[in-house]
Amino acid sequence: MIVSLLIIGDELLNGRIKDLNTQVAAQFCDRLGLSLNHTITIRDDKEAFNQAVDFLGAHSQGILISGGLGPTEDDITKTMLASYIRQPLIENDLARDLVANHYRAFDKEWTPNLNHYHMIPRGVTPLHNPEGLAPGLFFKNESLWLAALPGVPREFKAMLEQSIGPQISDQNLIKTQQLSIRTFGIPEEKIFGHLMPNLWGYLAQFGKVSSLPQIRGIDILVRSPQLGPSQINEIKNFLNNSPLAEFIWSFDDTSLVQAIIELAKEKSCLISLAESCTGGLTASRMTDISGCSSIFMGSAVTYSNESKQEILGVKESTLLQWGAVSEEVAREMAQGSLKKYQSNIALSFTGIAGPGGGSIKKPVGMVCMAVATEKKVKSHTYYFRGTREQLKWRFSEQGLFLLLNELKNY
Amino acid sequence: MIVSLLIIGDELLNGRIKDLNTQVAAQFCDRLGLSLNHTITIRDDKEAFNQAVDFLGAHSQGILISGGLGPTEDDITKTMLASYIRQPLIENDLARDLVANHYRAFDKEWTPNLNHYHMIPRGVTPLHNPEGLAPGLFFKNESLWLAALPGVPREFKAMLEQSIGPQISDQNLIKTQQLSIRTFGIPEEKIFGHLMPNLWGYLAQFGKVSSLPQIRGIDILVRSPQLGPSQINEIKNFLNNSPLAEFIWSFDDTSLVQAIIELAKEKSCLISLAESCTGGLTASRMTDISGCSSIFMGSAVTYSNESKQEILGVKESTLLQWGAVSEEVAREMAQGSLKKYQSNIALSFTGIAGPGGGSIKKPVGMVCMAVATEKKVKSHTYYFRGTREQLKWRFSEQGLFLLLNELKNY
Repeated sequence: MIVSLLIIGDELLNGRIKDLNTQVAAQFCDRLGLSLNHTITIRDDKEAFNQAVDFLGAHSQGILISGGLGPTEDDITKTMLASYIRQPLIENDLARDLVANHYRAFDKEWTPNLNHYHMIPRGVTPLHNPEGLAPGLFFKNESLWLAALPGVPREFKAMLEQSIGPQISDQNLIKTQQLSIRTFGIPEEKIFGHLMPNLWGYLAQFGKVSSLPQIRGIDILVRSPQLGPSQINEIKNFLNNSPLAEFIWSFDDTSLVQAIIELAKEKSCLISLAESCTGGLTASRMTDISGCSSIFMGSAVTYSNESKQEILGVKESTLLQWGAVSEEVAREMAQGSLKKYQSNIALSFTGIAGPGGGSIKKPVGMVCMAVATEKKVKSHTYYFRGTREQLKWRFSEQGLFLLLNELKNY
Repeated sequence: MIVSLLIIGDELLNGRIKDLNTQVAAQFCDRLGLSLNHTITIRDDKEAFNQAVDFLGAHSQGILISGGLGPTEDDITKTMLASYIRQPLIENDLARDLVANHYRAFDKEWTPNLNHYHMIPRGVTPLHNPEGLAPGLFFKNESLWLAALPGVPREFKAMLEQSIGPQISDQNLIKTQQLSIRTFGIPEEKIFGHLMPNLWGYLAQFGKVSSLPQIRGIDILVRSPQLGPSQINEIKNFLNNSPLAEFIWSFDDTSLVQAIIELAKEKSCLISLAESCTGGLTASRMTDISGCSSIFMGSAVTYSNESKQEILGVKESTLLQWGAVSEEVAREMAQGSLKKYQSNIALSFTGIAGPGGGSIKKPVGMVCMAVATEKKVKSHTYYFRGTREQLKWRFSEQGLFLLLNELKNY
């Protein structure tokens, strides 16, 4: 089944907020075997709504609609939908019950003078919203269904899973299978250029190939409904014996931090960090993963020189002799973290995320890292490009790869 | 001028990656006085490209195109564009020069067997890419311009600013002015319901009103090309003397961390953190702001009980008596951070981000925080809902408001 997504909201087209619902809808569709072929974002405007629904309806059998279901005057999805399907808004008992229940779930009481959530277009089914107050709306005729959901990402996601899934998943859907070939440390051109010029053609036998440059490196995907376990094994064997092997860090969609946490658990290896330029980003990424607490001890975010000394035991003389951004300081930071957090592997970062603070000898984008274990400490220096936020991310990503490699040999 | 954005890429519609370019394009248009009215996302498919360009061309004078300019076989934007404007790909001297320069900027040498970046549709202008290798493409006829840019967010953004801006900004563009009324701690319904039922109508005199529920609270925007400083002052005066005053934390688009850092600098107040459940997120947000280092000392991310004791000096007896998630531990964490980082205000977090680890007495979403200064320490307990990542964000956000309030009185 081909579906599309219509996102409504001036705030997205003014750049005020970032759309988070496309990816959620896309992953939902992918999981259910639905093909999401188009998304359109429009302003809060009836004419644009009609044109977009016409366009999407011509190219799909179902349209997910995000946004504009709230209580304020710019929330006009319901009236646009009513007008599009040429039905009046009428009081709906099920909607009234749902709304009353939604309010009770938040320890509130609903009365009709609060909003008109109980009024919905005739012929439309109200849908339970597990995370918010406004109900969703579902309409279906012979050729097309329309599902209007709140734009708040938490509510949109919960409603997709819990209320839309059951409405549309009783079809005979065929799931697309996928193999991810995740590389690190080699550019796209080299992979498909002189390293393995026939790789694209080889993979294309098995399904649709795409190549995705990520910050960390190139991910190559092969997707097809016919891609079974034996084909996947065949490709893996081929690649594991190819020149690309040393650049592949994963064949699945586990995130880098997840891979680290799983391996650390397997090896009962406690991890800690010491972060200067990454400012807690790496710790935050680790702690996004539920269950990290059994192996992740913490991170000493030490932005000032004094805190590097006081908390991590970095020597004043090292700071004076080499400067805060140096492999020497990185090494003492990692060793300090190892000791203070009583961990088995500690990773440290000290660098220049910019935009200020760079010099010719130590430019913005320079970062020193160290990985310490009970037995040894190894340090590295790298140079990256990017904005402050991008550099923080790249530093963090590079450090996590060092950590993963150290863990593999632990 | 009305513009639209066409985003090309299977990976976005499979949910593999998140679109970051819409917001960048939207903010760019907003700043230049262009009205971005539509975005469409399609798969790497020629038919879909033609349909989308037809649709967008009917509703705008310019189309920004993102994605599909790279060197691999799924990068087909250039050939789709050539086919749409019915022109062959020809060798272009300017493109050849640009590409050679791009490669040199990355210390690489370009040769035609690496890729076909020097071949572009006849009648199309190649555009300098300050951040990557593939040049952009610009086409213009009487009624419509098309600008194709790489999808990699860093390159897309840099090209918009540096290469597209100059192509299109010599128009007589009128900028939309905006006032942001940013509230905290009051739901949308209450604001426009019994607190100030006439607020929407009052604001609508000045421009287009919209109400945006953010995680931290409701942002109300008023936008109009006619909104001048005197109107803005009139609205601010009205609101500062209204019942909404106590819920407004800002009238501009400074982020919460930016507001904190500016105020801290103004008051020469050093800040440090102690984070358990937020796992470094708050520190990472602080350090996203350039120049934070003059007031931000760091954060002790202490995930384990041992590290709370060892690094922050939390007493074992406090942990045993009250448990790690308690106001008592939060207080000792904040005091420990104050001491170790030699700061003037320290904020601590200890809570349960879930999904596991909750109990009836201490459910997932419970968080204890404390703000310590040299003179006193204040603690609080809150209960939120959400996924692990959402809860981390909410905890962090709530804590930052405590910090902002403490700073205001510092």
